[in-house]
Amino acid sequence: MKSLIECIPNVSEGRRDDVVARISAAALAAGPGVLLLDSTSDRDHNRSVLTFLGDGPSLVRAMAGLAAAALEEIDLTRHQGGHPRLGAVDVIPFVPIRGATSADCVALAKQLGERLAATYSLPVYLYEDAASSEGRRNLATIRKGEFEGLAKKMADPEWKPDYGPSRPHPTGGAVVVGARAPLIAYNVNLGTSDLALADRIAKAIRHVSGGYRFVKAMGVKLEERGIVQVSINMTNYEKTPLHRVFETVRSEAERHGVPVVGSEIVGLVPQPALLAAASHYLRLEADPGPQVLENKLLDVAFDALERSAE
Amino acid sequence: MKSLIECIPNVSEGRRDDVVARISAAALAAGPGVLLLDSTSDRDHNRSVLTFLGDGPSLVRAMAGLAAAALEEIDLTRHQGGHPRLGAVDVIPFVPIRGATSADCVALAKQLGERLAATYSLPVYLYEDAASSEGRRNLATIRKGEFEGLAKKMADPEWKPDYGPSRPHPTGGAVVVGARAPLIAYNVNLGTSDLALADRIAKAIRHVSGGYRFVKAMGVKLEERGIVQVSINMTNYEKTPLHRVFETVRSEAERHGVPVVGSEIVGLVPQPALLAAASHYLRLEADPGPQVLENKLLDVAFDALERSAE
Repeated sequence: MKSLIECIPNVSEGRRDDVVARISAAALAAGPGVLLLDSTSDRDHNRSVLTFLGDGPSLVRAMAGLAAAALEEIDLTRHQGGHPRLGAVDVIPFVPIRGATSADCVALAKQLGERLAATYSLPVYLYEDAASSEGRRNLATIRKGEFEGLAKKMADPEWKPDYGPSRPHPTGGAVVVGARAPLIAYNVNLGTSDLALADRIAKAIRHVSGGYRFVKAMGVKLEERGIVQVSINMTNYEKTPLHRVFETVRSEAERHGVPVVGSEIVGLVPQPALLAAASHYLRLEADPGPQVLENKLLDVAFDALERSAE
Repeated sequence: MKSLIECIPNVSEGRRDDVVARISAAALAAGPGVLLLDSTSDRDHNRSVLTFLGDGPSLVRAMAGLAAAALEEIDLTRHQGGHPRLGAVDVIPFVPIRGATSADCVALAKQLGERLAATYSLPVYLYEDAASSEGRRNLATIRKGEFEGLAKKMADPEWKPDYGPSRPHPTGGAVVVGARAPLIAYNVNLGTSDLALADRIAKAIRHVSGGYRFVKAMGVKLEERGIVQVSINMTNYEKTPLHRVFETVRSEAERHGVPVVGSEIVGLVPQPALLAAASHYLRLEADPGPQVLENKLLDVAFDALERSAE
């Protein structure tokens, strides 16, 4: 089976669609065989999230092409937007999807980091599973101070980059490259307008305040519907599964007499996360994944694709 | 998107592996583009179930090739086995998988029926969604009397076949061709050795005795584990979903103080059946199917396959 990896560069441009299109096109041209699954731009954040899929070597080539185009098109000294950012290409995570491990993605992150530093004199920080120390695992810590504070931060030997020079690229800043598990953005809607309750439940489930290891969460008001939501980022659905978090939210809400009125997944979700939920509630004795007809099709389709590529 | 249909011929040979292999090979040779997903032979039943996947026209060509080989290789006058059968190729259902409807599969069944009758002088009965009358929907009714009673049954004008002569093929009998929804074989295991309870619950959920419209069920003893099982055939998981049947079994068992200790899916299962269960229990506000990453991959893979075939 062909190994499949997802790569989700976040670039600091979300307003000029033509620029984003040229950056995507540069990635695809540099990495034949790579597919663009999704491109989402946020005007307030002035940032775009591009989702690419391919095998490891093709993705590294594609990301080198993307970085070249982004450095040419984006000048961070003139960039404004609501989302924290350190560079023109702000962050590039590799995520294992099929037939690939976290270790494979760490190796790709390091390979890409070396290449970006060598080719574009760009300082590179490794994060999450690729981090060189515990203190660099967290993206928010690395990004603290943003582009505007980067020169000062880098003067501190503690913030010497993992690759490249100890000074920012003049217009491109720095890039954070890493490997992580697939993220799921998941929201649970409560039948109340009491934002304090959503906040209290978010606190109960999130890691920092004593909750699940791989959960980030906050309370959010849904003005139009007149209800509140526990807005969740699941950072590792294999270790902290969706259904366990859902049940905890439900139990905490019910303790206050508030029902869960619904839940929603935002963006893409790996199939195993939902199969695990089905499996939990139906008390399945075996992982149903290998029996899913569509997965047989996927194997067959990729085999055929590989043969046709030979 | 390419339309994908499953076709699952059951042939009356489950002991001579070389014969089954030749029959499969004949199907693939006659229908280029068709894929063999699975081949399962049962020695006691002396019967093999072959699972093919492809587009409609290719599958019709493949099934004509399969019938020719089966008629050549199998002599029903000498066939013995534990499973009821009417013909060398006993039954051929078409099942819609992606981008195809039940009506498409009915049309294919009729097209194949006409072709088998014309080419091999084989009597053909249409069943399930392709049936020409309500009395012919049920496979068991058509098959009653088996090969040995077929000549007598066909003498009755009521059992004139839908296509072909009103007498059995001398060594090949008759074939039953049709269209149906995907089947799910699903078992729920109970924490008791009381077979009567499993039987009572089976009766509560199955259609014939007042249960769900698309459920067949019976109680079965699992000797090795010392427990009993409600063994279920789900004949339309869209209209009678898995989780609803599971919850009814659980409720009926709990009323007698018996827990559900597990459940199992036998063979292949369409992804939407499990996503519907996840969606039910997680109270998802939208069908998660379009957000499943693997489904995006499947679309991309099939698009690429089609382009490479052009």
